[in-house]
Order: sequence, then C-alpha cells, then structure tokens
Amino acid sequence: MEVEGLTKIADLGKPRVVIVGGGFGGLRLAKALADAPVQVVLIDKQNYHAFQPLLYQIATAGLNADSVVSPFRKILNEQENFYFRMAEVRSIDPVEQVVETTIGLLRYDYLVLATGATANYFGDKQMEKNSISLKSVTDAIELRNTLLSNFEQALQIGDVEQLNSLLDFVIVGGGPTGVEMAGALSELRAHVFPRDYPELDLKQMDIHLVQSGPVLLKGMSDEASAHALKYLQELGVQVWLDNRVTSYDGYTVTLKSGDKLITRTLIWAAGVTGAPVAGLNPAALLKSNRYQVNEFSQVAGYDNVFAIGDIAQMTTKEAPEGHPQVAQPAIQQGRLLGENIKRLLNKQPLQAFAYEDKGTMATIGRHRAVGDIQLFGKQYHITGWLGWLGWSLVHVLALVSFRNRIAVFIAWAWNYITQDKGMRYIIGKPKAPLKEREVEIKPIV
Amino acid sequence: MEVEGLTKIADLGKPRVVIVGGGFGGLRLAKALADAPVQVVLIDKQNYHAFQPLLYQIATAGLNADSVVSPFRKILNEQENFYFRMAEVRSIDPVEQVVETTIGLLRYDYLVLATGATANYFGDKQMEKNSISLKSVTDAIELRNTLLSNFEQALQIGDVEQLNSLLDFVIVGGGPTGVEMAGALSELRAHVFPRDYPELDLKQMDIHLVQSGPVLLKGMSDEASAHALKYLQELGVQVWLDNRVTSYDGYTVTLKSGDKLITRTLIWAAGVTGAPVAGLNPAALLKSNRYQVNEFSQVAGYDNVFAIGDIAQMTTKEAPEGHPQVAQPAIQQGRLLGENIKRLLNKQPLQAFAYEDKGTMATIGRHRAVGDIQLFGKQYHITGWLGWLGWSLVHVLALVSFRNRIAVFIAWAWNYITQDKGMRYIIGKPKAPLKEREVEIKPIV
Repeated sequence: MEVEGLTKIADLGKPRVVIVGGGFGGLRLAKALADAPVQVVLIDKQNYHAFQPLLYQIATAGLNADSVVSPFRKILNEQENFYFRMAEVRSIDPVEQVVETTIGLLRYDYLVLATGATANYFGDKQMEKNSISLKSVTDAIELRNTLLSNFEQALQIGDVEQLNSLLDFVIVGGGPTGVEMAGALSELRAHVFPRDYPELDLKQMDIHLVQSGPVLLKGMSDEASAHALKYLQELGVQVWLDNRVTSYDGYTVTLKSGDKLITRTLIWAAGVTGAPVAGLNPAALLKSNRYQVNEFSQVAGYDNVFAIGDIAQMTTKEAPEGHPQVAQPAIQQGRLLGENIKRLLNKQPLQAFAYEDKGTMATIGRHRAVGDIQLFGKQYHITGWLGWLGWSLVHVLALVSFRNRIAVFIAWAWNYITQDKGMRYIIGKPKAPLKEREVEIKPIV
Repeated sequence: MEVEGLTKIADLGKPRVVIVGGGFGGLRLAKALADAPVQVVLIDKQNYHAFQPLLYQIATAGLNADSVVSPFRKILNEQENFYFRMAEVRSIDPVEQVVETTIGLLRYDYLVLATGATANYFGDKQMEKNSISLKSVTDAIELRNTLLSNFEQALQIGDVEQLNSLLDFVIVGGGPTGVEMAGALSELRAHVFPRDYPELDLKQMDIHLVQSGPVLLKGMSDEASAHALKYLQELGVQVWLDNRVTSYDGYTVTLKSGDKLITRTLIWAAGVTGAPVAGLNPAALLKSNRYQVNEFSQVAGYDNVFAIGDIAQMTTKEAPEGHPQVAQPAIQQGRLLGENIKRLLNKQPLQAFAYEDKGTMATIGRHRAVGDIQLFGKQYHITGWLGWLGWSLVHVLALVSFRNRIAVFIAWAWNYITQDKGMRYIIGKPKAPLKEREVEIKPIV
C-alpha cells in the first residue's frame, strides 16, 4: 500500500491518534485527549454523535431526531487538537500504519477502533431485508415513517387480515430495546392513535414481543425481569417467551412453536454483532465479530491498535465473555484509554481496565420502569414510578450536549403533561412506500 | 368515470367539502368549517402542515424541521367533522363531482383547490435538475445536507477553483426567500463555520445573490429595498442587480452580463408557478398557472369548485394581477370561504373577498430586517433592531401550534445567545452525494 494521497490533514509533528467511530467510546476518548500532546483525528460516516438508547423514542414520535444527535464539530470545536473527517474506513494496514478510507489514506501512530456493533441477523438475509432494526437515526426515522404510513394506509383497507398486517407489530428480542419499543408502541395505542384515528378500531392493533429465552431483560435481576413482564402485560403487549422467529417473508411471521403472526412491520432487536474493519490479523477477531483486547484495550497482537466499546471483547475474570455491549463499558474504556495513551507518551506503565457497573435500567411506558442500581457495592432494585423517574433523569443527564438535555427534557415534560407524542410526521420514506406495497385496497362507496 | 372504488370515508349524510392541500389556506378553511354541518375531507401528499416562510432556516441549520411542521391529525384531531387522507390528487371530474386520487375516487359536494405553488424554472430543465429550491421540508433538508457535505468535502480539496465550487453559493431571486437565505448563509460564514472549520479559509466562501430587476424585495417600499441591499452588502453578500442567470450546468453559472460564477450549489428562489390539477375547464387556468376565481373564490365556470391561496388568481381592482403569493391572502381567503360555504348551505348571499394587507417583512441576519407595516390605513417602515424584533415576533406567533411556537422561540433564543446554529447534522442525503460528485481530490501528504 503506497502512502500517497494521504487524507489532507495537517501534520502537526505530533503523534496522531486516529479514532474510527464517534459513538460513546470514541467520543469520550477524543475528549479525554484534549490536553494530550497529540493530534486527534476522528473518522465517522456521520457528522454527528447519536444517543442510541433513545432511538426508539424517535421511532415512536416521542422525540425528534434533533434532540438526540449532536454534530461532532459542535461538540469538539473548541478542542484545538481535534480533527474530524466524514468518511468510512475500508481497511487497515498495520505494517505501514495507514488506514484506507473513502476519502484517501490516513497515517496513524495510534489507531483506536470504536466502530460499535450492528444488528445481528444470524445470516438470515430474508429477515435482514424485510425487518427494521434500530441501530441508527436513519433506521429510527424509517421506522417512524413506516408505522405512521401503515396507519394512513389502514384507513383504506376493508379486509381484516390486510388491516391487521398494517396495524400489528412484531418485535423480536426481549432486551432493553425490544421491551422499551413495546412499551412505547402500547402508549401510542392507548393515548395517541385513538385521537388521531377515530376511524380505526384500535382493538385490532396487536403488539407482539418475541423472546428466545425464558425471561425478559436477560442479565438483569429476576425482580426486574418479572416486573418488565408484568408491566408489558398490563399494557396489553403479547409476550412470547421461550419462542423464536424462524422466518419472516415481509407478511407472515413463523414462530418456532408453529404459531403464525401477520405483520408488515417486524422490528429486529435480537442482538448485535461487531462491525469489524478489514486488515487486522484474523486471529484477533473472535466469533462474536469483536476484537480480542487485553486489559489496556490493545487488540491481540498489536501495541498501537486499540479497540473499545461494542467492537472490543476484553475477557477478564469479571466478564469472561466480554463486557455488555452498552454505553457504560464503552465510555469507561474510552476515558481510560485517553489516560493510557498519555501514559504511553510519557513511557509510564499502563493502567488496567476495571469495569464499574453502575447498573441497568429499562422503561416500559409512563410510570413504569425497572432498574438494578449499583450503589456502594450493593445492588438496589427500583420499579414503578421511582424507576421511571430515575430512568428519565439518568437518560437526560447522559445526553452529550446541554442543548440535547434541554430539548429532551422539554419534549418529555410536554409528552407527560399532554399524554401526547407530537413528532408524528412522515418526512422521508417508510421502509416500503405505500405505492410499492401490494395491499389490496377494498374501498367502500 | 365510474364512481366505484370510492376512497373509504364514512358517508355522514352531510354535504362533503373536499380540500386539496393543507397549506395556509387549506388549513385555515378546514378550521373555519369546524362548526359547519358538513364533512371536511383534507387531502395532502404530506401528513403535516409546513410553515414555508421558515424553511430557509432549516436549510441553514438554525431550526430543525420539527419546529415548523405540525401533523394535520394533531392540529385537527378534536374537530369531529374532520377527515384526513394522505394522497395525491390526479384529476377532477366536475360533472360527476368526483376527485381521482392515488388512493381511489372521492365524491365531493364542494371542492376547494389549495394546492399552492411550485418553483418556476420557466421551462429550463437543466436548471431544474441542477438547482435546489425551497418549497418543501424535503427541499430544505436536502439543501442543509448539501451545504454541510460541501464543507466536509472541501477539506480534501487542493485546487482553488474546485474549492470555490464547494464553498460558494449562488442564490437566484431577490425576493424575501433569496434575501433571507443570503443573510442566513452569511451568518453561518461569520459565526458558525469559522468555529467548525478552522482548517478552511472562509474568505474563499462567496455568497452571490442575483436579481433580475433593479431592486431587491420588489413590491416592498423603496426604503425597505434600499435597506435590504445595504444590509446584505454589510454582510459581504455580492448582490447582482439587473442581471439574470442564463444557464447553469451544475458547476458554471452564466449571467446575462457575461460574467461567470463557479458553484455546485445554486439555490433557486426566482418565483413560483401555480400547481394546478387536471380536469377543470382549461379556460379557467390563466397563464400564471393559477385558476381564475371571482371575489367568492369560485373557479371561473363553476359554482361548487373553489380555489384559494397561491393557486388562485382573484383579479380585483386592488390586485389586477391577483394577490401576492404569500401566506396572508391564502389565510384570509380560507377563512372567508369557510364563512361563505356556511352561507351557501343557509342559502344566504356570499360575501366578497377584500384583502387586508398587513404588510411585508424580511429579515437579513441578526439585528437586521426590513418591514412595511400597515397600521390604521397608514404604512410604516421599520428596519434594523426593531424590524428584526418585529419579524421574529410575527413569525413566532404565526406558527400553527403552540408547540411549534415554543420550539422556535427556544431555538432562536439559543441561537441568539450563543451566536450558534446547532442543527448542522447531515441526516439523509445531499442533492448529490459526495461519492457521486466528480471532484478531483488532491490530497497533501
């Protein structure tokens, strides 16, 4: 690989840290290097950081996309050693220490992979084509457009099965995303759609949640799992435990149990897989598509190539299968790696990562949430009103910018008071535009 | 045309008023009929009302799209006689009293065309293909994505002409949209881009405004026109008066004077043309593509077909060429038509339309605006700080929903205090995605 045509970034004569991906981990690392004598170059295919845990609220018209995204340049434009390039990384050449991107080659001294994870369809191409996942802002907007278009189209349908294919939703995966999505959809059914669609019989709108294991929110406490199930049942969500979707053709969902569900909208929240980059030693990539890293986040076999967050699998005693693929490990690894890069520069020994588990929470609609909180080494369970308030507070505070916090706070206060979700406009396209759907329109004169 | 397959809307046994288009006029009319013994059916290809006068602020990252749109169902879901269908109208059969839409046929007793206007390219297909207009939310988002992508790409460019093709903007049309757009772009250049793009020399960013006549803001007072020109020149906008764009191939702009400008972003704000629907008597459609209507908004030759707003040309003594294609005539015609439809039902004589001109305003960046205000039959001119405050106030209050008003007010207060425009994310696609542009990337090692 010739090191010609390098991406045009000034050579500061300082070590260059290239960060690939501006999610929770990459962004925190970039910030942690603010006072380091390095050049920080962030590469991302988007020009903004998106707060993934709230994407489902964009999809269900509770928040607008703007509230949960912040442009990288805006977040970091006062950091003098920060450079951003909007591009995709194609491959890495660890010998020449060069990253190949869609806008040219880029030399690095330290390379940090923070590319995150994507939806894992376990090789089911038909599922990938027909379902909607919730990994990006674009996904969330597409899902919002789809569900609103469904309802607009449903007004024209006479046939009951066709009607149900538009009004029913199947969510696959009983983790936080699936559970929160099911809760948000049932809120739309209870409070918003009856006002918007008096012409429709909303008893026809069914929300199914399919979970492969025996409990929801696997990994949380039994108490949290049980409460989540109870809450969803109170809200009228049909929860299928110990079951699995075996196929989906865009219309009929077949379950392992043999049951069949009809829907045009299947939301895929059944786990993720790493988003690796070509060029590193294949042995460093584990079965989970995550890079094996040591306690300093160094990718196996490399001194100056690191991986943090969802793409990294740091197998320690406390986490033999790696840390959970959520925000906290990524943030903590990003922060520590910032310190460790400074230590490397100062030829000091590196600090080992120790995950501080702050707990897990999930909300299931108004006044309903579950949380396992770690405080002073002890685990506390919160549910109901308190859990819901705690969840809201934690998520508002976790947002990246002050503007985001204000925007989300105001939107939630508004939604709470009015029991409304106002962002129900179709801007852009649904998954399958109305015209392209083969729905027989049976109008009545 | 067989009246089979009618769009599935309950027959209330009441006269049905079908409104095509939910802009300022159509929406006001729908509201005005709230207490009338009719069924109101609104057809629009979007599921939301968009506040067009602020689209340029979406395009320049000052507002998010959400702040200026409201879903029709949300605005009107408490109005019992209101029905909405998201569809496009293909044609009208005035004999059978049926509208053909993309989702079926729809019978009407009273038909109101409020389809507005679209950008007028005067038949120049090349211009239409290569330029961006500002008539819809989608246009505005596309323009925002384009201008931000330009800057991201510019970082990779060595060649000065290529660099300028990305950083320079040409706006065609010196009406309110063109003038406000030029002002907003120069604010980005002065306050936002220097922070975001310290790597770029922003002296290279030129903003051109091309106006065919001798003055800007034609139709406003001489004082307003002169101030607008002065303000734009203070902000460093290059204003070309008495000139015209004769061709644009996506890269080179040729002016009537022979001058050539280089830009990949030409914003077309040079007038509009009506958006008529097929099926009515061609004689009723004037050269301007607007329907000729009488003082009761009845389309020439019809008793029960009306047109209001931009699509209507009511030639009265006060307005021999019809009313200006702005919000106020549409709103006032919508309101009066609501009353007149009730009068028709009661067999009362109709009231003739009299336009109440409240004045015209345009803003040209922070603390700079011009306004011709009509108060108690006298015209007042306001400029500068006062004009800017007045413009802001009028536009906040004119927004359709309380939520929109709050959102815009907060965003503006924020922008004002921070001198920032925070909505600079690229969600969706630019006019021409980066990869598809034939820009030679000349990187420096």
